[in-house]
Amino acid sequence: MKTIGIIGLGLIGGSIGLSLKKYNYNIIGFDFNKKNLDYAIKIGIIKKVSSFKNLIETSSIIILSIPVNEIVKILDGILKKINNKQVVFDTGSTKYSICKSVFSNINRGRFVAIHPIAGIENSGPKYSNSNLFYKKNCIICDKKLSDPDALLITEKILNFLKMDISYMRSKDHDIYMSYISHLPHVISFVLSRTIFEKFMYDKKKLIKMVGNGLISTTRLSKSSPNTWTPIFLENKYNLINAISLYINFLESFKNLLLKKNFEKIHKYLKKYNINEMI
Amino acid sequence: MKTIGIIGLGLIGGSIGLSLKKYNYNIIGFDFNKKNLDYAIKIGIIKKVSSFKNLIETSSIIILSIPVNEIVKILDGILKKINNKQVVFDTGSTKYSICKSVFSNINRGRFVAIHPIAGIENSGPKYSNSNLFYKKNCIICDKKLSDPDALLITEKILNFLKMDISYMRSKDHDIYMSYISHLPHVISFVLSRTIFEKFMYDKKKLIKMVGNGLISTTRLSKSSPNTWTPIFLENKYNLINAISLYINFLESFKNLLLKKNFEKIHKYLKKYNINEMI
Repeated sequence: MKTIGIIGLGLIGGSIGLSLKKYNYNIIGFDFNKKNLDYAIKIGIIKKVSSFKNLIETSSIIILSIPVNEIVKILDGILKKINNKQVVFDTGSTKYSICKSVFSNINRGRFVAIHPIAGIENSGPKYSNSNLFYKKNCIICDKKLSDPDALLITEKILNFLKMDISYMRSKDHDIYMSYISHLPHVISFVLSRTIFEKFMYDKKKLIKMVGNGLISTTRLSKSSPNTWTPIFLENKYNLINAISLYINFLESFKNLLLKKNFEKIHKYLKKYNINEMI
Repeated sequence: MKTIGIIGLGLIGGSIGLSLKKYNYNIIGFDFNKKNLDYAIKIGIIKKVSSFKNLIETSSIIILSIPVNEIVKILDGILKKINNKQVVFDTGSTKYSICKSVFSNINRGRFVAIHPIAGIENSGPKYSNSNLFYKKNCIICDKKLSDPDALLITEKILNFLKMDISYMRSKDHDIYMSYISHLPHVISFVLSRTIFEKFMYDKKKLIKMVGNGLISTTRLSKSSPNTWTPIFLENKYNLINAISLYINFLESFKNLLLKKNFEKIHKYLKKYNINEMI
């Protein structure tokens, strides 16, 4: 029976463990957070807690589900320790700095850079579920830099998770993601800040006026700071461009309001309905 | 049996009709859109289609569920035609310009300005449901300007809808709403525009990368232009202030990114979690 070692038993790592349970793997895990480890054993995400060293030595497949800055810190060292049958993949939301960190590693081929686009605003193993990845998108980056067998093994796991796979350069992935995912997160945190500043001395009034609109637009502000601080920083230049473009469009919308141009605003709202795109 | 006349049989008017069905009212309706009228009869939102004139003459309670600019246009005329037993209330999302339009009307007391905070991104009677208002917030504005009996009758209806009522000045309502509701709508439409500009020639790539984050943050961009163009314009000065404050906070977040200040960003994301407020 092949051993799968999951490093990081939060929402993503935990859900991978639960999703792979029905397949024939020996799933072991490591996490710096003892609570996560206890929980992972308790609900059966993993069969056994492992030391970091033992996990690297004994796992056929090593999965890194930790914040992106920590992946950048340890991936190069892990690849140097493994043999040419083992496979490593990460699940980070940024990909360029991770791929760059192992570009000249002699074992680069054993690594597959993936991004399962399946996160939710809640974090930690208690939100894990075996359905998290069902029919969700997954991007594999820079696949030509992975050995064909390592790629196949990773794709097999992603098929077990029922994900829809596509392929992309890591650099492009990060540019696109800065608009599709990282900007929406910034938008949500900053809206939440705006609401704080206006209502911090008047929470009661806020609660009496709140509706579904605010709730869905600020949902992402519940996301984990441990996960998202590194994502924003690893992708900061793309993200700054995305925020700047967004600010330009907010300014131009303000101008439409100032000009009281009913027709133009109506056309704008009709055109920029996200249903036309997705 | 008292007659209730609903003018405007979209999502809100339609849902009011359905919610009041089990009570002892003769519910009639008027809409300029023939499709809405046919649909309202078909699914039993109203018992009978009425002419505008007949509805005003025969209804004990007249409900205006039409875009806010149209309320401003017709409310003054309606109040001039009714007697001192009839009651009119509107359901518009802005309140100040509506209240101002009838401030010196001799029948001002027969009008109650309310805002049921229950909209969804879908519009039209086909999305109506009798549960739309259940435990949602409803604001009654400038209640001192309404006759006590008109207020009581309106509150009775809101109790039938199971809404949580609170009271506020119309001017304050519009300021608060510019932050709590109108700004989130602008944010969503403008994010949707940003996504259009970046991906209009590459929809396929967008679809392969999209996740729940973008979906919830752009949900409001599906809202009806007929409803929202007038809301934005009626409340434009408050809204411009809200957008400006929001842009300032976006700029300062960009600066945190530029300074690569991990600690400060982490603290920011931890602090501005909307769960701390609502």
